[in-house]
Amino acid sequence: MASLDEGWADPARLYREGRRARLLLDAAREAAAEAVGCRGDELVFTSSGTRAVHSGIAGALAGRRRAGGHLIVSAVEHSSVLHSAAAHEAGGGTVTEVPVDRGGAVDPEAYAAALREDTALACLQSANHEVGTEQPVAEVAAACRAAGVPLLVDAAQSLPWGPVDGDWSLLTGSAHKWGGPAGVGLLVVRKGVRFAAQGPVDERESGRAAGFENIPAIVAAAASLRAVRAEAVAEGARLRELTERIRARVPGSVPDVEVVGDPVRRLPHLVTFSCLYVDGETLLHELDRAGFSVSSGSSCTSSTLTPSHVLRAMGVLSEGNVRVSLPVGTEAAEVERFLDVLPGAVREVREKLGAPGGARAREEGGSLVVDAVGKRCPIPVIELAKVIGDVPVGGTVTVLADDEAARLDIPAWCEMRGQEYVGERPADRGSAYVVRRRS
Amino acid sequence: MASLDEGWADPARLYREGRRARLLLDAAREAAAEAVGCRGDELVFTSSGTRAVHSGIAGALAGRRRAGGHLIVSAVEHSSVLHSAAAHEAGGGTVTEVPVDRGGAVDPEAYAAALREDTALACLQSANHEVGTEQPVAEVAAACRAAGVPLLVDAAQSLPWGPVDGDWSLLTGSAHKWGGPAGVGLLVVRKGVRFAAQGPVDERESGRAAGFENIPAIVAAAASLRAVRAEAVAEGARLRELTERIRARVPGSVPDVEVVGDPVRRLPHLVTFSCLYVDGETLLHELDRAGFSVSSGSSCTSSTLTPSHVLRAMGVLSEGNVRVSLPVGTEAAEVERFLDVLPGAVREVREKLGAPGGARAREEGGSLVVDAVGKRCPIPVIELAKVIGDVPVGGTVTVLADDEAARLDIPAWCEMRGQEYVGERPADRGSAYVVRRRS
Repeated sequence: MASLDEGWADPARLYREGRRARLLLDAAREAAAEAVGCRGDELVFTSSGTRAVHSGIAGALAGRRRAGGHLIVSAVEHSSVLHSAAAHEAGGGTVTEVPVDRGGAVDPEAYAAALREDTALACLQSANHEVGTEQPVAEVAAACRAAGVPLLVDAAQSLPWGPVDGDWSLLTGSAHKWGGPAGVGLLVVRKGVRFAAQGPVDERESGRAAGFENIPAIVAAAASLRAVRAEAVAEGARLRELTERIRARVPGSVPDVEVVGDPVRRLPHLVTFSCLYVDGETLLHELDRAGFSVSSGSSCTSSTLTPSHVLRAMGVLSEGNVRVSLPVGTEAAEVERFLDVLPGAVREVREKLGAPGGARAREEGGSLVVDAVGKRCPIPVIELAKVIGDVPVGGTVTVLADDEAARLDIPAWCEMRGQEYVGERPADRGSAYVVRRRS
Repeated sequence: MASLDEGWADPARLYREGRRARLLLDAAREAAAEAVGCRGDELVFTSSGTRAVHSGIAGALAGRRRAGGHLIVSAVEHSSVLHSAAAHEAGGGTVTEVPVDRGGAVDPEAYAAALREDTALACLQSANHEVGTEQPVAEVAAACRAAGVPLLVDAAQSLPWGPVDGDWSLLTGSAHKWGGPAGVGLLVVRKGVRFAAQGPVDERESGRAAGFENIPAIVAAAASLRAVRAEAVAEGARLRELTERIRARVPGSVPDVEVVGDPVRRLPHLVTFSCLYVDGETLLHELDRAGFSVSSGSSCTSSTLTPSHVLRAMGVLSEGNVRVSLPVGTEAAEVERFLDVLPGAVREVREKLGAPGGARAREEGGSLVVDAVGKRCPIPVIELAKVIGDVPVGGTVTVLADDEAARLDIPAWCEMRGQEYVGERPADRGSAYVVRRRS
């Protein structure tokens, strides 16, 4: 509020309001740099975290053009990183996507093995935005340093909780992720890192972020980062205990649930689970009616009808996916109420979907066939679960489905249920997924 | 303030805060579109006016790549347009800069003559940001339309006062220019205009402005645009009368002043003048001490030590340049106080600079030579003015100077004083400017 009154002027101007704005901007830069663990002149403010990522990747790639055109990213990066990688590929560059394990983390050795002679830049998030898994940034940074390749860390998720360990070269963040205002991101480029800002530039922010600085928002961003950091240790421990309650108790109170993400190396405030036989969008609306605002990576909730690329890369169930992000200050009582409400909400959605979905099972050459073509998630998995009991142990059932989520969720269901996923083959419409009954 | 409470959520989310944010965003878009005179689905919000210009030019050029790589701009565009043009040129494109007259306006016929078979895009500001001159946008838009070339109008200066006339194709604006918050720009792309957003994109803002929308700022921007527009006719007339007072009275109260910019086709709130023998930065500090926050396009006030490209393109005096921008609501009494204070402030600066500057005049082959090498503006012009009386009518004086502003200000001084500017030639250090005494 104070900076709305004092920070409206153009810091490039000589009159007193401009000088005052410049002082506010400089102070905010120093405060943010201290929180990040860098020098003030290594940090610029951008108009969003997304812009910081886009500008950071483009500038680092251009600065290392002589080294080559190879970019490494993990498979679970934020879309802003993956969009940058896609743009790089469209422009003739090459991209390696390092896979993750079922917990969502990259293997540092696998990451290091992706480094090549022509690698210009490597990117790795500090922690995942959908499942909370922390990445082995320090190990990957050491491998990159040894190979002479700069590492860009998207630290949007972890910055509220502390600086990023390890010898990284570039770092990005987003103020609204730490409870600051929208419209402020930050981009850190360590001294000595080759960097060539792309696109039109001006004299603002060391030529790395063009346009009139949004000083009131920048000041609020720096102040809020300092405020959350002051309580990060205590609040992080408190929220970790609350998310641990959800991790521990949801599998007991809700049948057929998979909690996803690393149980230990994780962000304190985030917990994600997926519920079999549940349509994520309907569940979100049920929880919304009860006063809980949660997100989902289910395909049913996205406009593209494809499941979250993070859940896909982890190979975990995407249907009925729920992401609970506890804001700083969340009361234990609220979490208890959520745990009370959730089982009934899931039950209700399952009852709604339990009605015959129109899919039919038929015999075909000794194998049971379930036709779920034209049905959206979670119907194909529900129909599979309905008929598996009719299959003799050792026999197979084939599910015909054209919903993109089935490719992910049928193997995930098999893994959860101890059944064997045999494989997939093209069908007249969509694909045929074959499952063998084990028990 | 209300939208800080209600608009913090992600409009892409399904829970109620997200839906509420989406409604606020949609309402802001409709309000802004109505003020601009376009459809809601033609307008996206960007993170600044600069970003709107950069994205608009890059997207329009890419969308018309098949037509060719030729871009037209006026010589007095905002730096964001000129930086985009420079980036286009660096990428292999060609750029034509259309000159302006001494009032700062382009000639529509000259602009039309720059249109070529391979012109992909033409850009013209609605009004100039330094001198307030309005451009003949409607005529230029008609010529562009006839040639099948889209016209992008940078309307940042004029949007508070009304929509832009004429059949333009793209338009950009900046909220902090109409009294809204920093961090919000707008980009309008008319239906049917070929446009291919450049760089990484996401699903936000129709794929034309990536990153989490700053909804509180966007809502405030739309509300403030509506508010200033409600009073634009009355307030514009009132401010026009106040700036007219400055235009009319400054030349009478301050000797050796040139008021610049078109006296009639101009913005209501802006007035710019240049004072001979004055250092712009010192004058700004004098006025700042008296409580007036003004800007300057003098070379002495910029970090690059080159005078404003606008004043240079107009061929007017840059030294002692003062730009007065009256905010909405400025009282007549404040303007009167400025008019009272100004003559004394200018006199004081002139007295300070009047002390021998270290330049010396000497005879050389029948011509007087003034050596002002190493002296910054306005010293070279002051020294010229000091010795011109010693030159016989018809004789010449040569000024040696290496300050970039001298190239602009010595001819401008000649024009103001009815002396003849003979020309320039390279010297050992800097240039030699030759002036013939006429009277």
